[in-house]
Amino acid sequence: MAHEFTYTRRVEFADTDAAGVAHFASFFRFMEEAEHAFYRSLGSSAYRIEEDRVEGMPRVSVSCDYLSPVRYDDELAVHIVVREKTAKAIGYEVRFDRLGGAEPVTVARGAMKVVHVTRGHGVRDWTVTELPAALLERIEVAPEPDPGPRHGGAA
Amino acid sequence: MAHEFTYTRRVEFADTDAAGVAHFASFFRFMEEAEHAFYRSLGSSAYRIEEDRVEGMPRVSVSCDYLSPVRYDDELAVHIVVREKTAKAIGYEVRFDRLGGAEPVTVARGAMKVVHVTRGHGVRDWTVTELPAALLERIEVAPEPDPGPRHGGAA
Amino acid sequence: MAHEFTYTRRVEFADTDAAGVAHFASFFRFMEEAEHAFYRSLGSSAYRIEEDRVEGMPRVSVSCDYLSPVRYDDELAVHIVVREKTAKAIGYEVRFDRLGGAEPVTVARGAMKVVHVTRGHGVRDWTVTELPAALLERIEVAPEPDPGPRHGGAA
Amino acid sequence: MAHEFTYTRRVEFADTDAAGVAHFASFFRFMEEAEHAFYRSLGSSAYRIEEDRVEGMPRVSVSCDYLSPVRYDDELAVHIVVREKTAKAIGYEVRFDRLGGAEPVTVARGAMKVVHVTRGHGVRDWTVTELPAALLERIEVAPEPDPGPRHGGAA
Repeated sequence: MAHEFTYTRRVEFADTDAAGVAHFASFFRFMEEAEHAFYRSLGSSAYRIEEDRVEGMPRVSVSCDYLSPVRYDDELAVHIVVREKTAKAIGYEVRFDRLGGAEPVTVARGAMKVVHVTRGHGVRDWTVTELPAALLERIEVAPEPDPGPRHGGAA
Repeated sequence: MAHEFTYTRRVEFADTDAAGVAHFASFFRFMEEAEHAFYRSLGSSAYRIEEDRVEGMPRVSVSCDYLSPVRYDDELAVHIVVREKTAKAIGYEVRFDRLGGAEPVTVARGAMKVVHVTRGHGVRDWTVTELPAALLERIEVAPEPDPGPRHGGAA
Repeated sequence: MAHEFTYTRRVEFADTDAAGVAHFASFFRFMEEAEHAFYRSLGSSAYRIEEDRVEGMPRVSVSCDYLSPVRYDDELAVHIVVREKTAKAIGYEVRFDRLGGAEPVTVARGAMKVVHVTRGHGVRDWTVTELPAALLERIEVAPEPDPGPRHGGAA
Repeated sequence: MAHEFTYTRRVEFADTDAAGVAHFASFFRFMEEAEHAFYRSLGSSAYRIEEDRVEGMPRVSVSCDYLSPVRYDDELAVHIVVREKTAKAIGYEVRFDRLGGAEPVTVARGAMKVVHVTRGHGVRDWTVTELPAALLERIEVAPEPDPGPRHGGAA
C-alpha cells in the first residue's frame, strides 16, 4: 500500500518568468507531474485510451501557498501525501522543498483533489467512475496527520 | 474607485490537453491575465522596471475549483472581485463564466492573494512594499458579499 | 478570397522568462493563435469534433528567427501571409511587429506549414485529408513576393 | 571535448493538446532543456547571475520538422549535435527519438542557433559576448556530417 510519493524536478528556463523566478502556475505542472509519476510507480497511468473508452484523472480543486521563490536550475522535491480517498476520488497534500542547500527548504505547500472519469469515444462528456484497480487497491490514506515540515536555516 | 473587473479570453489550442479540455493550470494564466488587465485599466502595471529598482506583484496564494470543463475556442469571462485590501496586498475572488450559450455558465471559481514587492537591480531578494499610488488610491474592497453566481441550463 | 491576416496580442507575464523577455517558444503560441484567428475570420475552425470524426490542422514544420526581444506588456502584431496552398496543406510566412512606438518594429520572422487531418473517434492515427470547403475556397496564395518589412528607428 | 548530448524526457500531460498529442511548441521546450542539460554536464549554465552582470544564451533562430506525433507518457530522447561554433555562438542540429519500442523512432528533427549575451544589472539591453570558458574550451563541432537517422518499423 502506498500513501506518499516524492518526485524530483529541476526548474527549467521555460518555467521562469520576468521576475526571475518560477512562474506561479508552473507549480501546478510540477504537482501534476508528481501525481502522475506516483500512478506510474504503481503500474497505472493518469490517462488511458482503450479501444472503446478513454479514462482520465482530472482535478476538481487545487491550491498553492507560495513561501519562498525558486529560480532557474533549482532542484525541487515535490512530495505528495494521500489525505483522502474514496472509490472515485483522491485528495492530496503537496509540499515543495528546494534541494541543494545544507537541508531542504519548504518553498510552497498545496493541495489537489482528483476524480476518476470515463467517456466513450466520440462522447463529449465525462462520467465520474471508479478508480482503476491498481490505484483503488494500492493507495491508502496516510496514517499521520502531518508529514512534518522541512525547515532551512540554522537548526 | 474600482472593485471588480471582467476580462474576456478565448481558450486557445495551446491551453488544452489530451483530455480535450483546457488544462487545469491554464486557468491560473487566465486569472493572472485578468488581474493584470485590471491594473492596466487603472493606469498601472503589474511589473515595472525603473532606473534603480524593479517592482512586481507576485502571488502568495491561489486556488481554483473546477465545475465544468471548457474546450478549445470557448469564450471565457474571467471576473475578479476585490475581497481584501491592505497597503501592501490585495485578495481577489475569481469566477470563470463560459460565454456563447443562452446565458453565461460558471465553469470555475478561484481566489488569489497578491503582494507588492520591490528589489534593487542586482539584488536577489524582494521586499514587500506599498502598492503603487494608482492602485492604492483607486482599488477598494467590493461592497457586496457575493457577486452572484451565474447559472446555465433552462431558465 | 483571403491571403493574409493580422492578429494583435499583448505579451502576458506567463509568456516571459527569467531573461526578462518573451520566451522564444511563446512565439509559436502567438503564431498558432494568429493562424486560428484567421480560420475563425473565415467562418471555419482549426479543430472540429463531429459526431463520427475529429478534424485538425497540425503543423508539419515551423521556424522562427528572433531579431529583437519583446517584453511584458508589449503589444505585438502577428502578421501571417499565405505562401503556399494545396488541397491538403497551407504554408505561411509570419512576421511579428512590436507596436506602441512611433512605427512598428519587426522583432521576429517565421514560417509554418500545416496540413489538414482527420481521424475517426477511437482511432489513434490521423489521415491527411482535404481542407474544409470554407478554407479551400476562400484562402489563396498571396500575390506579392514579400509583404514589405517594417522598420523602427529614424525614418 | 564534447560535440553531442542526449537528454531523455517523458511527455507530460501538460505538454499535450486536444489533438491527443504533444503540442508542437512543447518540442521547443524539450530542445532547450536538452541544450541546458548539455551545458550543465560541462560544469556551466545557460543563465548566470553574477554580482555585477547577468549572462544568458538566447536563441537567434530555431526550427522543427514534425514526422510523427508523440503522446502522453511517451519517452523521448532529445539528441543535440554541435554543427557550428564561433567564440560567441553555437549552432545545433536536434533529433527527437521516441523510445520504448523495439528500436527508437525519429519523430522530429530541428535546429537552433544560440548566442551568448551579457548585460549589467539595471541595463535593459543585452550585448553579444564570448561564451564562458567552460563552453568555449570544451565544445567542438561534431566530426561527422550526420549522426545517422533512427528508423522504426521492420528492420
